[in-house]
Amino acid sequence: MQKNPFELLKTSEKSKARLGKLTTAHGVVNTPIFMPVGTAATVKGVMPRDLKEMQAEIILANTYHLYLRPGTDVIATAGGVQKFSGFNGPMLTDSGGFQVWSLKDLRKIKKDGVEFRSHLDGSKHFFSPASVMKAQREIGADIIMAFDECTPYPSTLEEAKHSLAYTERWTREAMEWLKENPPLHGYPQYFFGIVQGGMHKELRAKAIETLKELSPDGYALGGLSVGEPPEVMYEIADFCTDLLPQDRARYVMGVGTPWNLLELILRGVDMCDCVMPSRNARNGMLFTSQGVLRYKAGRYARIVDEAPDPECSCYTCRNFSKAYLRHLFQAGEMLGMTLATIHNLHFYLELMRRAKQKIAEGVFEEWALEQIPILQRDIP
Amino acid sequence: MQKNPFELLKTSEKSKARLGKLTTAHGVVNTPIFMPVGTAATVKGVMPRDLKEMQAEIILANTYHLYLRPGTDVIATAGGVQKFSGFNGPMLTDSGGFQVWSLKDLRKIKKDGVEFRSHLDGSKHFFSPASVMKAQREIGADIIMAFDECTPYPSTLEEAKHSLAYTERWTREAMEWLKENPPLHGYPQYFFGIVQGGMHKELRAKAIETLKELSPDGYALGGLSVGEPPEVMYEIADFCTDLLPQDRARYVMGVGTPWNLLELILRGVDMCDCVMPSRNARNGMLFTSQGVLRYKAGRYARIVDEAPDPECSCYTCRNFSKAYLRHLFQAGEMLGMTLATIHNLHFYLELMRRAKQKIAEGVFEEWALEQIPILQRDIP
Repeated sequence: MQKNPFELLKTSEKSKARLGKLTTAHGVVNTPIFMPVGTAATVKGVMPRDLKEMQAEIILANTYHLYLRPGTDVIATAGGVQKFSGFNGPMLTDSGGFQVWSLKDLRKIKKDGVEFRSHLDGSKHFFSPASVMKAQREIGADIIMAFDECTPYPSTLEEAKHSLAYTERWTREAMEWLKENPPLHGYPQYFFGIVQGGMHKELRAKAIETLKELSPDGYALGGLSVGEPPEVMYEIADFCTDLLPQDRARYVMGVGTPWNLLELILRGVDMCDCVMPSRNARNGMLFTSQGVLRYKAGRYARIVDEAPDPECSCYTCRNFSKAYLRHLFQAGEMLGMTLATIHNLHFYLELMRRAKQKIAEGVFEEWALEQIPILQRDIP
Repeated sequence: MQKNPFELLKTSEKSKARLGKLTTAHGVVNTPIFMPVGTAATVKGVMPRDLKEMQAEIILANTYHLYLRPGTDVIATAGGVQKFSGFNGPMLTDSGGFQVWSLKDLRKIKKDGVEFRSHLDGSKHFFSPASVMKAQREIGADIIMAFDECTPYPSTLEEAKHSLAYTERWTREAMEWLKENPPLHGYPQYFFGIVQGGMHKELRAKAIETLKELSPDGYALGGLSVGEPPEVMYEIADFCTDLLPQDRARYVMGVGTPWNLLELILRGVDMCDCVMPSRNARNGMLFTSQGVLRYKAGRYARIVDEAPDPECSCYTCRNFSKAYLRHLFQAGEMLGMTLATIHNLHFYLELMRRAKQKIAEGVFEEWALEQIPILQRDIP
């Protein structure tokens, strides 16, 4: 294994909020951080230079999608996903565990892995801990994830226990495989274990205990934001961060709204990722400093002199009006989706930058509690 | 009427190729020029800053589309299409004549204009020369076009004569309306007349004679590239530029491939526009310095170390491989269309810049004849 890439810089005195940094071969990531999702080695509709301009520090890609298309061997030939995609900054790959689990009728979970059919062409494939680690070696992300089995919500204690056993076995197998198979592209790849256990605290505690013995480079909380109420998610995250080692990064997978992020930072989480800002942008929703803006609404058709978010400094808000964005959406123009995505991602990243600043100043808690209701409201 | 915005700087000694410049309130356009098409006040998938980077000097938008959506009154409220779209450079609007003519079953041509149904919702509308000029005043492009009646191909002399009579009457009416209704946004709008007449030289000559008496700020050739063989198009353009005044800009509407452009420049044409580079980019075709590249082909799946056009300096070719572009297309990712569009438009504009340089150096003819067969070939 590599040495731990994370350095804890500060913990707030009033909450569990932390400042830290992750050092990778492709750059430094300052935490707390939000990771835009680039499933197929592209953040949908956005160019790498737009990501640099909004100061995205790390991008997530998906092993499942890249394995099917273009094939991880193609990415290996290119020298890794950073070079292939032109992002050339730190990247993280999800293991595909969540994706194959989501296939439901198309997959069969076995003791040694998951048999599944491609959602693209129905072809048959098998993911084992070793094959997924091999795929992630080929893709070459700076941070790679354990192959896990996501626990459904709701689940009984028995079901969750059964599911967790898979994740634990597969994590062990993955780490053994990685020990014997070093990175392919000449730079370190840090391995993050995934804590499962559903909404059962005793299982989460057990999962963390087991994982700590294995000592991965970082810890992720999986199986959250799968249908449970936000309060339950916060509570489980809060419970887990009390048990996780202080000196490793904590990453909550697949979450969430801007207010979810602030709530998780309060509870000691360092990293999050979610398709929400990019997907919702394409569907007509912007997250703004004033709340949620549904920019496709007819009431914006004539607002030609006001930015989508007047407080925002992104390319979209600096150059275009609510009326223009609404027009692009109405006309089905790709540019509308691109401009909305640029805003939403910039907004998330800027919110994280402010959070870091407020933690540094020792006033994060007051600020976050003031921001949360503003961020949540619907702009009329 | 405004004063003529065009200045003729040089005519080649070996062909009719010319260097000139058009001066507008939003900037200078150096001719010969290609105008990217931004139908609905956006060049599909491309941001204004990308257009600036590729040094697009003028963009075309469509009156018909903007009239229907978002409505020309919205654009007027924004202070014109340059501000509305964020391009902030010279723009030209097509009059909508060609678009309503293309509606075929949805329109009825009358003496005083065209009655048509919207292709969007079937609603009924009427375009007259005056209403179209009013719409173009509201949109506020730097160059506005006559409302014409496109002559079908093929057409008999009688049909073409009949069609031309409409265009001539409507041009007169448009110019009268414009005289009494000055620009709305505080800067001049130059009016270009459109020469019709089908492939009948005597009618083209008559059309030019009539138009010269009206003395518009510039001259467009309409009704070309409507199905006739390229040689016929070249011949008609050649015939017309002999008759057109030397001191005004000549614009061939809706043409064409890179080699079409070089052929037209040889024949004394200053301006062209076409959806081809942007539309074909989205469909998987790139125009390159080596010929036509169908980037979606499987043979590019593993070409990870070569730009789409190795000779090109556009953002796409500087940062991405054939394999990545092909992957994006296969995965249905918007970014593929954006990157391909950026390349094709950059390629067209760069070809025009080279053409200008070669005309200045007095070697355009040799260079163009060498380039044409290279540009046309299919890359295996």
